[in-house]
Amino acid sequence: MISAITPDRILQTGLAFWSSKTLLTAVEMELFTELAKHPGDLANVQGRMGLHPRAARDFLDALVALGFLQRQEGIYSNSPETDLFLDKAKPSYIGGILAMANHRLFRYWGDLTTAVRTGEPQNESKGGHDPFTALYADPAKLREFLRAMSGVSRGANMAIAKKVPWSGYRTCADIGTAQGDLVTQITLANPHLAGIGFDLPEVGPVFEEYITANGLTERVSFIGGSFFTDELPSADVLLFGHILHDWDLDTKLMLLRKAHAALPPGGAVVVYDSLIDDDRKENAFGLLMSLNMLIETPGGFDYTGADCVGWMQQAGFKDCRVEHLVGPDSMVVGIK
Amino acid sequence: MISAITPDRILQTGLAFWSSKTLLTAVEMELFTELAKHPGDLANVQGRMGLHPRAARDFLDALVALGFLQRQEGIYSNSPETDLFLDKAKPSYIGGILAMANHRLFRYWGDLTTAVRTGEPQNESKGGHDPFTALYADPAKLREFLRAMSGVSRGANMAIAKKVPWSGYRTCADIGTAQGDLVTQITLANPHLAGIGFDLPEVGPVFEEYITANGLTERVSFIGGSFFTDELPSADVLLFGHILHDWDLDTKLMLLRKAHAALPPGGAVVVYDSLIDDDRKENAFGLLMSLNMLIETPGGFDYTGADCVGWMQQAGFKDCRVEHLVGPDSMVVGIK
Repeated sequence: MISAITPDRILQTGLAFWSSKTLLTAVEMELFTELAKHPGDLANVQGRMGLHPRAARDFLDALVALGFLQRQEGIYSNSPETDLFLDKAKPSYIGGILAMANHRLFRYWGDLTTAVRTGEPQNESKGGHDPFTALYADPAKLREFLRAMSGVSRGANMAIAKKVPWSGYRTCADIGTAQGDLVTQITLANPHLAGIGFDLPEVGPVFEEYITANGLTERVSFIGGSFFTDELPSADVLLFGHILHDWDLDTKLMLLRKAHAALPPGGAVVVYDSLIDDDRKENAFGLLMSLNMLIETPGGFDYTGADCVGWMQQAGFKDCRVEHLVGPDSMVVGIK
Repeated sequence: MISAITPDRILQTGLAFWSSKTLLTAVEMELFTELAKHPGDLANVQGRMGLHPRAARDFLDALVALGFLQRQEGIYSNSPETDLFLDKAKPSYIGGILAMANHRLFRYWGDLTTAVRTGEPQNESKGGHDPFTALYADPAKLREFLRAMSGVSRGANMAIAKKVPWSGYRTCADIGTAQGDLVTQITLANPHLAGIGFDLPEVGPVFEEYITANGLTERVSFIGGSFFTDELPSADVLLFGHILHDWDLDTKLMLLRKAHAALPPGGAVVVYDSLIDDDRKENAFGLLMSLNMLIETPGGFDYTGADCVGWMQQAGFKDCRVEHLVGPDSMVVGIK
C-alpha cells in the first residue's frame, strides 16, 4: 500500500509555476505571434526575440516539451493550438488573460498566504478600495483587462450563442459587457437578434471598436451606466458572464433582483461562471477561481449551480436550470 | 481539424500557478502536519490554522479538489500522499523543497523574462555573486536549502541505494552532500558500506545531526572542504547528486577530472540529475530545471545523458551508461 504512494504529484503541482511562468513569458514576448509570421532555427529565433544565448535553447526546448512549440530538423514553429489561440494577429487570440496573469496575477498570488489569513485582496486595491476603480482609472490596464476577459470567456460565449433557445427572443443585453465578446458571439450566430452591451462609460470606446471590427454596429449598441446606481437596460434576455463571482452575496442578490425587474414576463436571465460542483470536491478550477476573487476583490467568491439556483429563486425566477458550457464554465438560466 | 483544437491546455498551464501556490501556502502553514495530528471540521481547521472565514472553505475545498486533502461528512483530513510526504513529523517528509519554492523560487521566477533576456540569475545573488555564498552565510536559509535538497532527492537516493552494484565496493563518498540523505540511504540499505559526506564546513552540523538521527555515526563521517580548492576524498565510488547542473561546463569537466583522480582503478563515478532526453523534446521537467538553474546560478544548466557520457569520456572514464532512477531523475555511471 505505502509503496504505491509516490511524491510525484506533490512535486509536480508544487513546481507547476515553472511551466506556467515559462508559457506566460512566451506570451509576454509575443513569441507565438512572431513564429506565426514564419518559423526559424535557434539562432534566428534567438535574434528575433532578443533571447540571451545562455537561455534561448532551454527556453524554446522547454516550450517544445510542454507541447506549445514544435521543433523539426532544428526549425521551431507553433503547435496547432498556440498558432490558433496565441497569435495576436488572429481573431481567435485568447492570450489577453495570460498577459494579465503574467503582468498582475502571478505576483499578487505570491501573497496568497496573507490573503488566506486576512481575507483581504492582494492586488492594486490593497487597502480596501474598489478593485475596479484602480483598473478603470488607467486606460492601458483597462484595455488589457477587457481583452483578458474576452480571452477567458470566448469558449463559453460561443456555447451560449448556441445553447440558449434564441429563436424565442428578439433582444438581449449583456451586463458588465467589457469588450463585448458575449453579445458579439450571440448576435453573430443569431442574425435575428439585437443586442446591448452595458458597462461603465469608460468601457464604451473599447466596446465600440470591437463591435465595429465584427461588423455589428447596426444591431449592437452600448449603454454606459453602473449596475449599482442605475437600472438595468430592458431586453428579452439579460446575461451576466463572469460577473456575479466578482461580488459579495448581497450584491449578487441585488443584481438578480434588478434583472428580474428589468425583464418582461417570460424573459430569461443567464448567469455563467466557472461553477463549482455542488459537492465542492471536483472542480478545482472553480475553487481556485474563487481564491482568485479573494486576491482580486473585497467580497467576491465563486459558487455552485445549486447556490445560484437558490439565489435566482429568492429573486423571483422560476424554471431555473444549470447547463454545462465548455471547459470549467456552466450557465444557470432562470425565467421571469 | 480546427474544431478539435481547444484552448484548454493553454489556459490550464498559464494559470497552473494557482494550484501550485495553493499547495505551497498549505505547506508554508504546515496544514498537513497539523491535520496528521488529527482531522477536523471547517470551524476546527479554520481556528487551528488561523484562516480567515472568507477564505477558509474555498482554500480547503480547493485542496480537496486537487487531491491533497479528503473531506468526508465535513471532516477534513490528509490524502495518503500528503500524510506520508508533507507531515513534518514523519521521516518521509519532502516538503523542504516546497517550502523553499514558496519562500524563494516563486518570486524569483516572476523575473523569468529578465533572466531569459539577460542570461543572469534572478535570486539573492542578483548582481553576479556566487549564489551559494549568500545562502551559506545565513544559517536559517542554509538549513532550509539543505532540507529542500533532501526532499527533492529522496526518491532518487533510495533508487541509487539499490541500483548501483554495491556488493563490489566497500566505500563511497557523496560530493556536495548537503544534509547527507544520499549517503544515508546508501549505507542504510548496504550495511557493509562505509560512507563520507563532503561539503563546505558550514554544512557539518546539519549533516552530523541527520547522520545521528539515522543511527549511522559509526559508518558515516563528514569531511569539510571545497571541491574548487581541495582534492576530493578517496573512495571506491564517488557520487554527485544534483550537483553538476549547478555549474558551467568548465566546472562540470573539472569535477569529473577530480573524481577520476581520486578514484582507485575500477572505482566508479555516479552522477545524477533530472536528465533531459537526448532529443530535448520530452522531459519538460529537466528543461524547466535548467531554467531554474538560470534563475539560481551564474552558469549552471541541466543536460542530457549523452552530454554527460561525453564529458565522462573526456575525463577518462570508460563503460559509461545511463540508467533511469525515479520520476525525472536518471543516473550516469562511469568506471575508472
